[in-house]
Amino acid sequence: MTSKVGRRGGEADTRGDILRAGREHFARGYSDATVRAIARAAGVDPSLIVQFYGGKDGLFRAVIADAVKPESIQPVVEGGREGIGRRLAAWFFELWEAPERRYPFQALLLSAASHPPAAELLREFVTDEIVARVASVSRRKDARLRAELAGSHLIGTALTRYVYQIPPLSEVPTPELVRRVGGAIDGYLLGPVVRSSRRRRTR
Amino acid sequence: MTSKVGRRGGEADTRGDILRAGREHFARGYSDATVRAIARAAGVDPSLIVQFYGGKDGLFRAVIADAVKPESIQPVVEGGREGIGRRLAAWFFELWEAPERRYPFQALLLSAASHPPAAELLREFVTDEIVARVASVSRRKDARLRAELAGSHLIGTALTRYVYQIPPLSEVPTPELVRRVGGAIDGYLLGPVVRSSRRRRTR
Repeated sequence: MTSKVGRRGGEADTRGDILRAGREHFARGYSDATVRAIARAAGVDPSLIVQFYGGKDGLFRAVIADAVKPESIQPVVEGGREGIGRRLAAWFFELWEAPERRYPFQALLLSAASHPPAAELLREFVTDEIVARVASVSRRKDARLRAELAGSHLIGTALTRYVYQIPPLSEVPTPELVRRVGGAIDGYLLGPVVRSSRRRRTR
Repeated sequence: MTSKVGRRGGEADTRGDILRAGREHFARGYSDATVRAIARAAGVDPSLIVQFYGGKDGLFRAVIADAVKPESIQPVVEGGREGIGRRLAAWFFELWEAPERRYPFQALLLSAASHPPAAELLREFVTDEIVARVASVSRRKDARLRAELAGSHLIGTALTRYVYQIPPLSEVPTPELVRRVGGAIDGYLLGPVVRSSRRRRTR
């Protein structure tokens, strides 16, 4: 297993090869993937993965970010409140319909249920990358909770449709699904204030 | 490993012991559980599990039905359309808050992502036991799709709250969660007709 470093066109190519190999290995689950096996598949020395990504967790994070592209929520959110539900739903289901984007994210969702490092990564990712961006739409004190309810709804729908494949939800055309789910997302993000059960801190 | 059959009070006790042992073993995942290990834990001969439940799949089905108690949706649904969203959400989150009910269902959701027999069982269970009952509320041609959207939403919320434990959703008091999610469920079950993308078959 000789390292190919030095025979490459450049660091960008090598990073790309590592990401692709990581995507394939992580798609089968977080726990079974190893830096050594990913390095072998990418044709690089394992130390390069540590150097570029800090190790297995860092690479997993990079694979997820590359698949989900959370920064692409920004234009969806900046499109304004009108139609935000449908735009978010369309953004999310598009991610699930591209296999090379779907499988890493699906692996994260499934691994997070049993592997604490994957769970920590999912929490950070959802909180910092997704909820923070989507919350900017609703301009309310409970904006983060609203964004997370919308996100958890999308996750449940994607699991039922793409992973469990339960009809009729698995068979409805995507545009119709976007219309239906978009309404519920609008309700969460823009709907009337819901009385809290806890007293909030006085400001 | 002597069989305890004959030393028991009766068949009901034995069935209960098998269900309890099955619940514990399946909670760690569908694929790793074996009839032999469950029989050992229950103190019975493996052939009794085959006799009572038909084997591993049948026992898993019985464990799930015992945990989820889908027949208890019936009174929720029969309470009428007013407040149906909140009643269904309360029913569902109550299931997740009782560990002995939560873990078997959680195991089904996670196992179904990677094990075809568990996936088939989840599809049957959701379709026959949950969707069929909940669909009776909405009295529309697309009632099953509406019920499944509501159910997939509940599943996503439960995963985010109880399995991934992502705040603030994991920290909000249950009654507040029920109020918020109930509104979205009402929207799915009772909301206005959504234009379909496909032409429906002429009747």
